[in-house]
Amino acid sequence: MTTEPLRIAFLLFPEVTQLDMTGPAQVLSRLGNARLDLVAATLEPVPTDAGFSILPTATFADVSGADILCVPGGFGTHRAIADDATIDWVARIGADARWVTSVCTGSLVLGAAGLLRGYKAGCHWAQRHMLPLFGAEPVAERVVIDRNRVTGGGVTAGIDFALRLTALVRGEAHARAVELALEYDPLPPFDAGSPERAGVAAVEAYERRVAQLAPGRDDQLRALAARRGF
Amino acid sequence: MTTEPLRIAFLLFPEVTQLDMTGPAQVLSRLGNARLDLVAATLEPVPTDAGFSILPTATFADVSGADILCVPGGFGTHRAIADDATIDWVARIGADARWVTSVCTGSLVLGAAGLLRGYKAGCHWAQRHMLPLFGAEPVAERVVIDRNRVTGGGVTAGIDFALRLTALVRGEAHARAVELALEYDPLPPFDAGSPERAGVAAVEAYERRVAQLAPGRDDQLRALAARRGF
Repeated sequence: MTTEPLRIAFLLFPEVTQLDMTGPAQVLSRLGNARLDLVAATLEPVPTDAGFSILPTATFADVSGADILCVPGGFGTHRAIADDATIDWVARIGADARWVTSVCTGSLVLGAAGLLRGYKAGCHWAQRHMLPLFGAEPVAERVVIDRNRVTGGGVTAGIDFALRLTALVRGEAHARAVELALEYDPLPPFDAGSPERAGVAAVEAYERRVAQLAPGRDDQLRALAARRGF
Repeated sequence: MTTEPLRIAFLLFPEVTQLDMTGPAQVLSRLGNARLDLVAATLEPVPTDAGFSILPTATFADVSGADILCVPGGFGTHRAIADDATIDWVARIGADARWVTSVCTGSLVLGAAGLLRGYKAGCHWAQRHMLPLFGAEPVAERVVIDRNRVTGGGVTAGIDFALRLTALVRGEAHARAVELALEYDPLPPFDAGSPERAGVAAVEAYERRVAQLAPGRDDQLRALAARRGF
């Protein structure tokens, strides 16, 4: 087991789906000999989607490189994509990171930063169809690995993603130990965690709720992409 | 689907295993018509086990009742159990809460507050044997429901726990919709998430690491319990 020092940088932005970040952060905080930073424009508390705020540990100016870059998703991704300082930082760190990664709609942020052109990538199932906008090929899998891009599916996929990444970085024995420590032996109460399992009516109900919460979100993303030259 | 208003109160304390809280908080933040609070002694940022801090939304003095009380776990549980203000608040809220719940070693905090006497309860697999200290009967299941006590296993069990609780509180259709929205279709990379699956050598390695990180923790908990009259 290698114990070379590692720098992990998560992008943190307002209205992040906090579990997209806190799930993998829990796993990756146990890589050993690693520094984990939550990076934002300033050190002010960042409001999440779940009614509470998380404190960044560093600013964009503080962090000029990372071994692992990880971008979470959520309804705040559009605002993140619209923000030049955010996208510039993601592009800059992603250019030299050993692992360029995301969870959920975080892959759209990586895409907007130009980091997924010609790569296969994962995303939340309901937004996966937007990846080609940024030159990425959507893959309907929970964790998608293409060279040094490791991208997870929606929200809870971040735990599977981070355990896979742990195995890549520290070896399988280390990853198995973390899986045991976090008692990751999941038992979903319902067989409804993917559009295929949930069925058409459940998917349509989801789409209706999103259309209320974030009307026109696909068109908005297309406009944001166009503004960034895609 | 009922939409009666709900008040959810999570205990937040230093060195909490943050996923014990952030996992169920993600699920329960989608109960609809619910107020979710992270409650601590003061509003100062609370350092978690993962290298970052979370902001409480309310103090013990602010929150005098809740429909759902949820206590997460982690290496900080001993300090939480040693703290009179914390245990007094948990006991007070738990006395009248509709649902008294925990994730991971949070059940030991509920126990120390006298809320699990005569109840079956879950816990992180490695600390489950300590539950009888507080008059609770340990159960080796991912989610344990005994009357209005709903207690989860270790860390990631918080997601299963919160989906089960969602079904109890808002009905199965609502819980299925949240499961789909959070894409909870888990795919653990290794078959190592429980002591039974991981095997004896992995369990022994875990116990050795804990003995280094928190030497004598069972004896310390026994002393704390004795001080509280157990």
